[in-house]
Amino acid sequence: MKTKKAIVLLSGGLDSATTLAIANSQDYICYALSFDYGQRHKIELKAARQVAASLGVVEHKFICMNLDSIGGSALTDTKIHVPVSGLSKQIPVTYVPARNSVFLSLALGWAEVLSTYQIFIGINAVDYSGYPDCRPEFITAFEKMANLATKAGIEGHKFQVQTPLLNLTKAQIIQEGLRLGVDYSLTISCYQPNQAAEACGVCDACRLRANGFRALDIADPTLYIS
Amino acid sequence: MKTKKAIVLLSGGLDSATTLAIANSQDYICYALSFDYGQRHKIELKAARQVAASLGVVEHKFICMNLDSIGGSALTDTKIHVPVSGLSKQIPVTYVPARNSVFLSLALGWAEVLSTYQIFIGINAVDYSGYPDCRPEFITAFEKMANLATKAGIEGHKFQVQTPLLNLTKAQIIQEGLRLGVDYSLTISCYQPNQAAEACGVCDACRLRANGFRALDIADPTLYIS
Repeated sequence: MKTKKAIVLLSGGLDSATTLAIANSQDYICYALSFDYGQRHKIELKAARQVAASLGVVEHKFICMNLDSIGGSALTDTKIHVPVSGLSKQIPVTYVPARNSVFLSLALGWAEVLSTYQIFIGINAVDYSGYPDCRPEFITAFEKMANLATKAGIEGHKFQVQTPLLNLTKAQIIQEGLRLGVDYSLTISCYQPNQAAEACGVCDACRLRANGFRALDIADPTLYIS
Repeated sequence: MKTKKAIVLLSGGLDSATTLAIANSQDYICYALSFDYGQRHKIELKAARQVAASLGVVEHKFICMNLDSIGGSALTDTKIHVPVSGLSKQIPVTYVPARNSVFLSLALGWAEVLSTYQIFIGINAVDYSGYPDCRPEFITAFEKMANLATKAGIEGHKFQVQTPLLNLTKAQIIQEGLRLGVDYSLTISCYQPNQAAEACGVCDACRLRANGFRALDIADPTLYIS
């Protein structure tokens, strides 16, 4: 019987679905946490629901907030276009200022209420978009802050942010997910899908995802806008 | 002419009003940030509006989020009673798990969009309720995380969390606020005010506030429930 609990950040994309499957396989009782933050691709939350139902969680919580009132990103300000010309070496305009700090802090609050000290997040440092808050040094600094911020930390508990995808390529992530039974047809990675949840195929998220399936030479289950 | 910008977290209470007055007096162009987070004392936001209007800010942003869906605090779960029997040495049930981590992270996001690197928060370590996320070591850890989390941090900017009240007693805070023209009759500190914005007079926040006025031997402008 499972006894360990964990919170898993679940966007509805390929990475977070795989992360949930990994946490499940490591015998964690999983609590999924998704965010309705004014994102352009809000339809990802439909995918998050389906992924959570498919892989199994004990609870799936949605936190809503108007991050779009801050803007500053192509994902939260529809006046800024999502880049479609391929990955560059610069931090792209799809970077959402402080998003992972906000998301992990909310996860931290729920974790403390649940008396669990494990938070899983599907960031990775190989095939990624260059976001500063997807780097291991950020995660280490967040953990340190988390242990000082909380009553649980004062009581001696140690919050850990688990990043099982950190050093995997997109292809390795997909391989691991398939091994664990993830149905990637349920997931949406695209930054600008249409209302039918079809992917654009040309944004950074679509490119990274498609490259992963291509590298493995397996069929890409993504539904693309035709 | 003022050229420096700062974000000031503004709850509508005595401390944050004083903090805004201090930031204004230090020649910052102030952007106020308030949170509608499912708090029991949501009426404090009305005070926040009045304080911002009274002291002057260039913009006052409200971020809404359902922290009450996480609960775990007397301030976000109405089933948990607000303590009224006086301050104890333990962390009280009015502690909201990870609240300042969440609030400061949201301020960080807005700060990055505004290209400002100063965030003011009215925490203090003398007359306070024993919250872990009101300690200087938490603030230092947050700043370190903030600089790793953001594009601005990578570009060499340094976010600073300014805590001008940190080492002041409540009486000293009030004295400083009065010197700077804060109208404390506009502020609400109570954890459980009624709909007329009258204070209970017996919660920790009311006691600390009343003690401050008493120590200065000046009239307390707070409207109490009669």
